[in-house]
Amino acid sequence: MSTAVSPLAPKKYPEMPAIEGVRMATAAAGIKYKDRTDVLAMVFDAGTEVAGVFTRSKCPSAPVDWCRGNLAGGKARLLVVNSGNANAFTGKKGRESTAMTGKAGAAAAGCRENEVFLASTGVIGEPLDASRFSHLLAGMVKQATGEFWREAASAIMTTDTFPKVATVTVRLGDVDVTINGIAKGAGMIAPDMATMLSFVATDAPIAAPVLQSLLSGAVGKTFNAITVDSDTSTSDTLLLFATGAAAKRGAPRIADVKDPRLAAFKRGLGKVLKSLALQVVRDGEGARKQVEVTVTGAKSSRSARKIALSIANSPLVKTAIAGEDANWGRVVMAVGKSGEPADRDRLSIWFGDNRLAFEGERDPGYSEEATSRYMQRDEIRIVADIGIGRGKATVWTCDLTKEYVAINGDYRS
Amino acid sequence: MSTAVSPLAPKKYPEMPAIEGVRMATAAAGIKYKDRTDVLAMVFDAGTEVAGVFTRSKCPSAPVDWCRGNLAGGKARLLVVNSGNANAFTGKKGRESTAMTGKAGAAAAGCRENEVFLASTGVIGEPLDASRFSHLLAGMVKQATGEFWREAASAIMTTDTFPKVATVTVRLGDVDVTINGIAKGAGMIAPDMATMLSFVATDAPIAAPVLQSLLSGAVGKTFNAITVDSDTSTSDTLLLFATGAAAKRGAPRIADVKDPRLAAFKRGLGKVLKSLALQVVRDGEGARKQVEVTVTGAKSSRSARKIALSIANSPLVKTAIAGEDANWGRVVMAVGKSGEPADRDRLSIWFGDNRLAFEGERDPGYSEEATSRYMQRDEIRIVADIGIGRGKATVWTCDLTKEYVAINGDYRS
Repeated sequence: MSTAVSPLAPKKYPEMPAIEGVRMATAAAGIKYKDRTDVLAMVFDAGTEVAGVFTRSKCPSAPVDWCRGNLAGGKARLLVVNSGNANAFTGKKGRESTAMTGKAGAAAAGCRENEVFLASTGVIGEPLDASRFSHLLAGMVKQATGEFWREAASAIMTTDTFPKVATVTVRLGDVDVTINGIAKGAGMIAPDMATMLSFVATDAPIAAPVLQSLLSGAVGKTFNAITVDSDTSTSDTLLLFATGAAAKRGAPRIADVKDPRLAAFKRGLGKVLKSLALQVVRDGEGARKQVEVTVTGAKSSRSARKIALSIANSPLVKTAIAGEDANWGRVVMAVGKSGEPADRDRLSIWFGDNRLAFEGERDPGYSEEATSRYMQRDEIRIVADIGIGRGKATVWTCDLTKEYVAINGDYRS
Repeated sequence: MSTAVSPLAPKKYPEMPAIEGVRMATAAAGIKYKDRTDVLAMVFDAGTEVAGVFTRSKCPSAPVDWCRGNLAGGKARLLVVNSGNANAFTGKKGRESTAMTGKAGAAAAGCRENEVFLASTGVIGEPLDASRFSHLLAGMVKQATGEFWREAASAIMTTDTFPKVATVTVRLGDVDVTINGIAKGAGMIAPDMATMLSFVATDAPIAAPVLQSLLSGAVGKTFNAITVDSDTSTSDTLLLFATGAAAKRGAPRIADVKDPRLAAFKRGLGKVLKSLALQVVRDGEGARKQVEVTVTGAKSSRSARKIALSIANSPLVKTAIAGEDANWGRVVMAVGKSGEPADRDRLSIWFGDNRLAFEGERDPGYSEEATSRYMQRDEIRIVADIGIGRGKATVWTCDLTKEYVAINGDYRS
């Protein structure tokens, strides 16, 4: 376990306002960690709508199966999250564990079991003994409080070195509504899914199908555009809860995704998700630098994304950045290995504003000194222009350091 | 640059017999390295047939382009290889460099330019000044000698910590023929291509189209089944030369790939390629352990290969092995992220003979102690049975250590 906080951690955290209709409590159940909170209960008022996206892993965790099953109902009253054990690849025992938690949660919140949502994060393959915390739920629901977002974010951390929170307030109709989100994740982070775990809540009165559409649309350029190590988790879960409490203050109820009044909310949701996604990258295991990779001029945006991920996931590109070495030849390699249409002799590459390669050769005006200075920054921007089309995509990652190896060489034991 | 020899280096090297019709010389041209050989000339007698496979990178190096162009002729008289500079992404200058070397080589060997083959390995994007070594070629061709395989393998090393050689002698008709091979490569090693650089020669009289068919057939389970870091080189080149000199001793000329007399040669070629491929893995940058990943019970062998590569390329699996941690949950993760058909509840996983997971759960009979002991070995075998079909594949990789990051964080500078 890393104890030092990532050097890329936020210098300061935003004030997280309460969201009407949402209350939280945490507990220290000692599931794996000592002397810290490891269970979060998030309680929602009646009428809360919910949407979610999950890992595309073929070996999803038991809580992911549970949430998928409950999502059809579109209603949520309770979210229970534990850290320290993923309840993944736990077979029948895993299903028994989610059933036990679901039942205890429904009794605690006075709701139906299909209004209880579950998430677990930590070691894969260890049976999760839900009796360690299921008896705590009734008390947690009772004591739950609204101004508790930082604490909530801390309770779901595993190898994270800082809690991840984000908030925006936007107009819906003539009323201010707020979107708060928390996330956890530092390793086993790769796109084509949601992320490790992220929970977002709003007081906006928006129907579940609309929430789902907004959420599915927003992940592509946020959580699905980040990668720490190309390894996709079994447990990735992103849930969006809308309590609708702002309706009492006159916010319009939104039941149609094409409703023009959604514009600000949609932008705000994107902002929260992007902020949380970047915080995950900035807390990437062992990370010392945040890396933004933009590919332009590809055959299509899909192709640009594939090339950008090939660059962002290349161990050789990531170790070069860790070493502050402007080794743009490895970007050429990563473009070449992506399998996507490319023309070597039209390829140009920038690190920041330094153009290193132009039309298939080292740029004659390239300054090693200026580029080396640029590489010392803690936010690195790589742009590769493929030169054959108009496809564009941006993804974010971090560097690959010895600390990543150290953290992951002895995580389970 | 790493100076210590890999702990997985061969304890002893085979005697490499001369191949009639093949002579070699090396030179120290100071292209990048000081005080070591960095140019290899391999000279072939008239009549030598050639086959090759190359990187599938969309940004191939200039020498790869050159070799692809010459392969159609099917004849070879000279191979020139330099280390320290890949002549990749060097545009017009790169083509001028290969043209200059090809011309000087043809003059030195008294042959046509399309009988000269070139390979370069090292930094990407730096122009290669061929005048550093082209003037040496005439002298090298003159002094070339047959018993020089170890020296040849040493001259083409970059981050390699040991030279890679392999030899077999097999029957062709009633005559013994020999297959010798050398290879280099330690990083930027991923399947779906040949490898970094490998050159194989035989005295067997086999026509170029037959050689090509044998070679293309053999790479799938050898060089294309290894990965060090999932990064595919721009320069991967595997060439097979057949001098035909054994015909003088009565070996039959083979012009049909279905000739039953080829059976032993085919097996022998597979052995040489597999030996070289495994040596590349065992010299993987920073490697301390060789890892064999076998997937059985997949929907198809193609699917098994994809899952096996997902496991073998997972940074989390590779760092766990470096940490001697039997973290089989990460194997579950890698199966799940592969996107291939799988059924979590039928999956079983072994580390060596230790079955850790059975039918979707931790194996009740699993011994942490026995498995931890197994993880201390320097050759680790992972088997994942998907349980849904008969597809099977094996790939090889190495662990991911802090040394990999150290080597690659400061390679270019």
